[in-house]
Formats: sequence, C-alpha cells, structure tokens
Amino acid sequence: MAAIALIQGASRGIGLEFCRHLLLKKSQVTVVATCRYPENAVDLMGLAAQNSARITVFKMDVNREADIKDTAEIVEKTFGKVDLVINSSAMLHPSGKGETSLKDVSAQGIISTLTTNTVGPLVMAKYFAPLLLKGSGGFGQQPPEKAKQHSGIIVNMTAKVGSIGDNALGGWYSYRMSKAALNMATRNLSIELGRGRPKVVCVSLHPGTVNTDLSRPYHRNIPENKLFSTEYCVQCLMKIIDNLSMEKTGKAFAWDGSELPW
Amino acid sequence: MAAIALIQGASRGIGLEFCRHLLLKKSQVTVVATCRYPENAVDLMGLAAQNSARITVFKMDVNREADIKDTAEIVEKTFGKVDLVINSSAMLHPSGKGETSLKDVSAQGIISTLTTNTVGPLVMAKYFAPLLLKGSGGFGQQPPEKAKQHSGIIVNMTAKVGSIGDNALGGWYSYRMSKAALNMATRNLSIELGRGRPKVVCVSLHPGTVNTDLSRPYHRNIPENKLFSTEYCVQCLMKIIDNLSMEKTGKAFAWDGSELPW
Repeated sequence: MAAIALIQGASRGIGLEFCRHLLLKKSQVTVVATCRYPENAVDLMGLAAQNSARITVFKMDVNREADIKDTAEIVEKTFGKVDLVINSSAMLHPSGKGETSLKDVSAQGIISTLTTNTVGPLVMAKYFAPLLLKGSGGFGQQPPEKAKQHSGIIVNMTAKVGSIGDNALGGWYSYRMSKAALNMATRNLSIELGRGRPKVVCVSLHPGTVNTDLSRPYHRNIPENKLFSTEYCVQCLMKIIDNLSMEKTGKAFAWDGSELPW
Repeated sequence: MAAIALIQGASRGIGLEFCRHLLLKKSQVTVVATCRYPENAVDLMGLAAQNSARITVFKMDVNREADIKDTAEIVEKTFGKVDLVINSSAMLHPSGKGETSLKDVSAQGIISTLTTNTVGPLVMAKYFAPLLLKGSGGFGQQPPEKAKQHSGIIVNMTAKVGSIGDNALGGWYSYRMSKAALNMATRNLSIELGRGRPKVVCVSLHPGTVNTDLSRPYHRNIPENKLFSTEYCVQCLMKIIDNLSMEKTGKAFAWDGSELPW
C-alpha cells in the first residue's frame, strides 16, 4: 500500500516544495495537500493537475478546528491511514514583519500568530493522531525490534529563533513565542504518542532561512549562501525525515541534522 | 519615595498573598493591585479597606489590551513609576483541569489559556515597561556600578511543567505550552529591557505547587509536604525577588532559588 504524506500549508513555500519533492523523488508516496484557498493556489493546483493519480488537494484552514476535523474524516474514508504529517503553514506576524520591539506588540498580533503557528499544529495532531496510529510506517527507519517501530511521523516546522536558550538577539516576540510553544507541543505529543503501541515519531524541524514569502522582508539582510532555496531546504529536511525513528522522537533538529536546544 | 509594586491578578491565590505580604512586611512599599472583578474580590477589598493609604485596587482584565493601557495611564498619572510588576493570574485550562490527553485538546481551550497566561503578561510589559524604566530600583539588589543597576523588575509566574527539557510526563497541553511561550517572552523582554539604560530585570518564577484554586482539582494527589501554603510560597519568592539583579535577568528560577532549564 502507498505511503500517505499529508502536507498542511501546501500552497507555497516549504509546503509546496514538499509536495513537489515527494511526487518527483518518492514514486511510492501518495500526497494529501491542504491549504486555505486551493482556488488561488496556482502552483499547487498545477502540480495536482500533472499528478492527479498521486495527489489530492483539500481545502482546509488550520485556524478552524471544524475544517481539520472534516479533513481528517475524509482522509480516513479515502485512505484509511496517514504515514506522515508535515505542519508547514506559519506566519511571522499578521503584519508580515516580526516585532522589533515592545512597541510593535499587540494582543491581537500575538494571538493570530499563536493560532496559526501553534494551535493549528496541535489540533492537527488531535485529529490525525488516530490515522497516524493506523499508518504503515512508510517513512523513516524501522529498527528490527517490533516494539520500537513507528506507524507514523509528525513533523512540526519550528525555527531556531524559537529556541529559548539560543535567544541572544530578542525581538520577533510573537513568532519566537509561537515556536517555543510549538516545541512544547512536539515534546508533549512525543510522550503521549510514544507510550503505547503503535507509536508515532514527533519532531520539530528548523528549515534554515529559506527563500519564501515568510522571510521575504528580510532577504536583503541575509548573505546569499545563508538563504536556502526551497529545493535545497526540502532535500535537507527529507534526509532527516528518512532517518527518523523512535530514538529521535521529542527532539528538535536543524536542516543540517544538528539537535537544537530548547 | 515609596517603592511601587504592581500585582496583576491580585484577587486570590499567590497574587493576593503578595499584596498581603508586601503590606505586612515591607512598610516602605505601596501596592497597586489589579483584578478582573474587584466587586467580587472580598479578601482583596478587605485588605484594601484596612490599608487604604498603601494599596490601590484597579479593575483590569489582563485579556483586554485596552484595560491594560488604561491602567498604565492611570498608574503613571498617580505614581509616575513602577518598581516591580508581578504577573500572577493564570489558568490551567478554561475547564479548570489540564488536558490528560489529545482527546481533551480544543483550539478554543488552548487559545483562552494562551491569552490569559502568555499574551496578558507580554501586553503588560508593553504598557508598563515605560513606567518600570522610570522606577527607582526599589526591589532587588543594586551593585555599586551604576551601569549595572536596574530601575525595575518584571516577574512572570511560570511553572516547572512549562520547562520543555524537563517534560517527562506529558499532558496539560495548554498550560505547558502557555508557560513555555511565557518563558520565551521573559527571555525576549530581558534582552530588550537589558540593552539600554536604565534596565529592567525580567525573570520567570516557579512557585512550586501551591494551595490555590488553580491546583485544587489535584490536591488529593499531592503529598502534604509538597503542597505549599500561599504564605510559604510568597516568602520563598520574595526572598528570590529581594536578591534579583541584572546578573539574573532572563532566567527562570524555582521557589527554592534553583535555576530551571528551558
């Protein structure tokens, strides 16, 4: 049976590139792509038209619990399981720029950022954990011992600036706080979904600074060799995912495989 | 001039006890107490009636940015500065009980918890930082070197279960995530408010498990000697606050003075 990969936030950036990569490089994988506005997602819909046998697009707003529940139900009916969930959608801040100082902070800005970046992935886990527990372990490495094998993988896209211990520069209040809280969600999920059998691997991955809309306002400040293409970023992240096992659950890794501090 | 301590979430629990402690043990301190419903806060209003020269109560909902802004304005007009802000109000979850597993998670539950426990203290910092920067350094220890002295202190009440690295049990998704994000806020604030002059000390403090309404559903599972009275908890925390200086900013400490991992 095909391995099922669900990419949440697939209309652009890293999420879109994950879809492209999986279709191109992993012939045994079926892709479930979700985004808020498929009707506007020209690139994703083009990809879907060219690969209609291997990718299905669902309209889903990660800010709406009912959308997530409905999507999980239709994915369950259609595929019966999921092997990999990648939570990709995120914002720096509703304004498009991280707060440089307290004067830019607003309750509404933080709440919006937390809702998309943090609450969304956790509610995804709530509804997709049952499907991941029915997964075939189609991604990552399976050790010979059955008790240590996993049925599915959850990847939460974190960021190095979400590491509290690593924070030396400050700023970007909403984004940093949302990713710190997301890392806690990953850790908590790894405990709950690593306790019984089957098991689900849960990790946070830091993609590096990638040439996407999210980082666009800052591109001119980034040295060229530090601004990754989405292709390179996804190659790196896929290499990490291909090597995941229950030994690595509950941790945060950067694009180069190094472990991040909390 | 009197040292001004603002206790946010002063109607009960640790916040109320801080007011009581400061009035009883620190004769040179003036207390500004805030809570959502002073009209229902019998204990706080009783304390205020007995100490009317030294405590002022303001109605403020930490979930409402406009309330915080208005309170900062009136505190500025009345006192011109603040020396200490303690963010005390918090919830485990709107239901009163932390989630034991994913099935208890809801978007609305997490968002409510994050709003009170995390967004509130950060928005407090936004509006009260200018007053803390005008503080007289009335709390903590001042080193002889002027450049290392602080004008004010922000205390965010965190929890050991908000430490990602220390998390071995899981559960309590909303509460854990809210406190991890709050720790990031503390860290970020310590950077922004430690950069220039004057400076503000920003720390997260873990009060231990205290006999309050927040922990009430769990009291019968807690060994008696591990359930602190609010009096004992505030004595311990006040000892830490009395010893704070810029050397300790940006960190999280437990009631016994030990530093917590992120």
